[in-house]
Amino acid sequence: MSAGPGGRAEVVCVGDELLSGRVADLNAAWLGARLAERGWPVRRVVMVADDVEVIAAAVTDAVGRAELVVVTGGLGGTSDDVTRAALAQVAGAAVVRDAALEAALRARYRDAEPPVGALTMCDVVQGAEVLANPAGTAPGQRMGVGGATVVLLPGVPREVVAIAESALLPALGGGAVVTRSLHLPLADEARVGDALAALERSLPAGVRVGYLAAASEVEVRLTGRGADRAAVEALLEPVVSAARGALERVEGLLVLDAPLPASLVQALTGLGQTMACAESLTGGLVAATVVDVPGASAVLRGGVVSYATDVKASALGVPADLLAERGAVDPDVARAMAAGVRSRLGADWGVSTTGVAGPDPQDGHPVGEVHVAVDGPRSASRVIALRGGRERIRHQAAVAALRLLLECVH
Amino acid sequence: MSAGPGGRAEVVCVGDELLSGRVADLNAAWLGARLAERGWPVRRVVMVADDVEVIAAAVTDAVGRAELVVVTGGLGGTSDDVTRAALAQVAGAAVVRDAALEAALRARYRDAEPPVGALTMCDVVQGAEVLANPAGTAPGQRMGVGGATVVLLPGVPREVVAIAESALLPALGGGAVVTRSLHLPLADEARVGDALAALERSLPAGVRVGYLAAASEVEVRLTGRGADRAAVEALLEPVVSAARGALERVEGLLVLDAPLPASLVQALTGLGQTMACAESLTGGLVAATVVDVPGASAVLRGGVVSYATDVKASALGVPADLLAERGAVDPDVARAMAAGVRSRLGADWGVSTTGVAGPDPQDGHPVGEVHVAVDGPRSASRVIALRGGRERIRHQAAVAALRLLLECVH
Repeated sequence: MSAGPGGRAEVVCVGDELLSGRVADLNAAWLGARLAERGWPVRRVVMVADDVEVIAAAVTDAVGRAELVVVTGGLGGTSDDVTRAALAQVAGAAVVRDAALEAALRARYRDAEPPVGALTMCDVVQGAEVLANPAGTAPGQRMGVGGATVVLLPGVPREVVAIAESALLPALGGGAVVTRSLHLPLADEARVGDALAALERSLPAGVRVGYLAAASEVEVRLTGRGADRAAVEALLEPVVSAARGALERVEGLLVLDAPLPASLVQALTGLGQTMACAESLTGGLVAATVVDVPGASAVLRGGVVSYATDVKASALGVPADLLAERGAVDPDVARAMAAGVRSRLGADWGVSTTGVAGPDPQDGHPVGEVHVAVDGPRSASRVIALRGGRERIRHQAAVAALRLLLECVH
Repeated sequence: MSAGPGGRAEVVCVGDELLSGRVADLNAAWLGARLAERGWPVRRVVMVADDVEVIAAAVTDAVGRAELVVVTGGLGGTSDDVTRAALAQVAGAAVVRDAALEAALRARYRDAEPPVGALTMCDVVQGAEVLANPAGTAPGQRMGVGGATVVLLPGVPREVVAIAESALLPALGGGAVVTRSLHLPLADEARVGDALAALERSLPAGVRVGYLAAASEVEVRLTGRGADRAAVEALLEPVVSAARGALERVEGLLVLDAPLPASLVQALTGLGQTMACAESLTGGLVAATVVDVPGASAVLRGGVVSYATDVKASALGVPADLLAERGAVDPDVARAMAAGVRSRLGADWGVSTTGVAGPDPQDGHPVGEVHVAVDGPRSASRVIALRGGRERIRHQAAVAALRLLLECVH
């Protein structure tokens, strides 16, 4: 990975909780994406403990390699928050209480004495610029150290986003990095790689292919770098078309320009049609996945979570004798659920899930047997065999249901 | 952070997608937790690009500081998977195709030729032990380098879990690390830190307090380390009691031994009672959060996602004139939704959410105004003002609804 047109960046994530696994860091990924877009690719991320010496050493290392070092975490008001002290050590400066921050804090608490921890968050490294925190209490800080700029941000992701968007990112210049993605719901990564092997051997300079395999999809990322955005986009466009063509020739792959839920909301919005969800093993996940997409209210009527078997009869109108004869894990039950929720919620399309998330088999059906169905202008049902734990099976079942619906809508 | 009774561990996460922010790494957190439990605390995590030289340098660095180095990612079958080559370079060994792995792969594909990428996953560093992958194709690899053991794992989280549980973790000895947590739904981290400041000043040796602030809760983690589990638990128990007492004296805090959804499922299971959810802005998230808890089927009847306003009337029996007069964002609407879902789904308890997730205000109500209600043996409703983006507001609304229900159940 070469330096971007902006410069080299590194990220230092501070927190025992990241190393002990009590929390998974989200800041590095967010910062990596935003910095790369501005021509400051992140070349290294390191996670270290809440320890002054260890943090100071990591910052010193990073300053020796990069022009921009972003440090997240350790700016709160509890005793394990020592990032301020670490930067002070690296910079050979003192930590001082900022009068303006303290006055603003006291104004927020009016007559009450602020908690000691909140007062600690008014401390800054002498000489550092204070970066206002629109989403929380601890401000960011920015100062030059050696030839680099060091920026301290809190550890709470929404505060990182708020300070970065208001103060960190606007101050960066740099060239253009453009990424175009193709989304392949429930695809197999090795098959995808094979389909693109020839394309990869003939890529133009400045374009790179990457693969991202998740439980819900494989994402193919085509990234171009260059001096200006229009030139990079012109370079990238024929590569994207060629990749799409190669993938569409693979049987069973659905190739989308956006993640499946957004593609579905966009398709239904374009047609002026609505949907409703009837969910058993997914327990609300299909509806919640659609609601996550901005603009979902134009297409989602709602849904019924029929987790208990008799609720499938009472709330969705699935025939009780069908349930008695076959149990809940059955293609006809899935079809009746989709039809029931479509009619009861007055939607153009109904989509349903029923199956076995585990850990135990149910009514003789193995863990991972899932039935999804669609009822509407076109109807369909599908049985799939999923592997993995309870959460993965439920997540993939939700994706399979939305995929079947999008196939019917198209 | 001192070395554990087992030894020092470091984790190297490989992948351009981690640095470019296209995916947030989950492996470091999972490995950190599992290794710490076995007395192998992770002292450093580094994320590096898909580049042979860079990976080799990171592994060499880590081998110089730690007795165990776990490398994740870069073992797939596409051209950007170069971790095998990097370890070969560090160890001064060749990469060779493993005949047994290739035979097993060809057996899986029967008459068809396996994809080239899948064959690449049969390559191992000469001298490395192959660690079978129960959840995917690429096996793990383990070999001694210098004074350390280096373990290569794939990047897909469920494959990391599968290989670690079957081959990596059982081979580690070591002492005991015990963590006890208190969970405080929707709490303010600074207030929590203040409440425990006195306790922190009088901690016994070997015990440490950590804080984990998430959108849904603050988790207080009390971690003890020592030679054997019983002794560490005896050391930890009075500290946990003292922390609980200090937190319970703070007004408005709910102090739980487990995350809120698990606490709720446990409480309802103990009483033999059931629940049902009526959701507007949360769109299925309340039900899905409950379904995530193993054993949820004993207590969750199901739910109705009434995303469109008229569905609140047709599917939940909220009076149409109430909706016409007040709109959907209203305490009486929330109460009627909870009562409606309780009665229609035949549950002991109904819980509901309605409010404004944004980005725009609705019917004169500001973004973040959320009403939650409970109907059952005890009934209650609450209005809360939430801040942040759409996803955060929906997530916190779901937590607020479950919290109100648990308060009523208690």
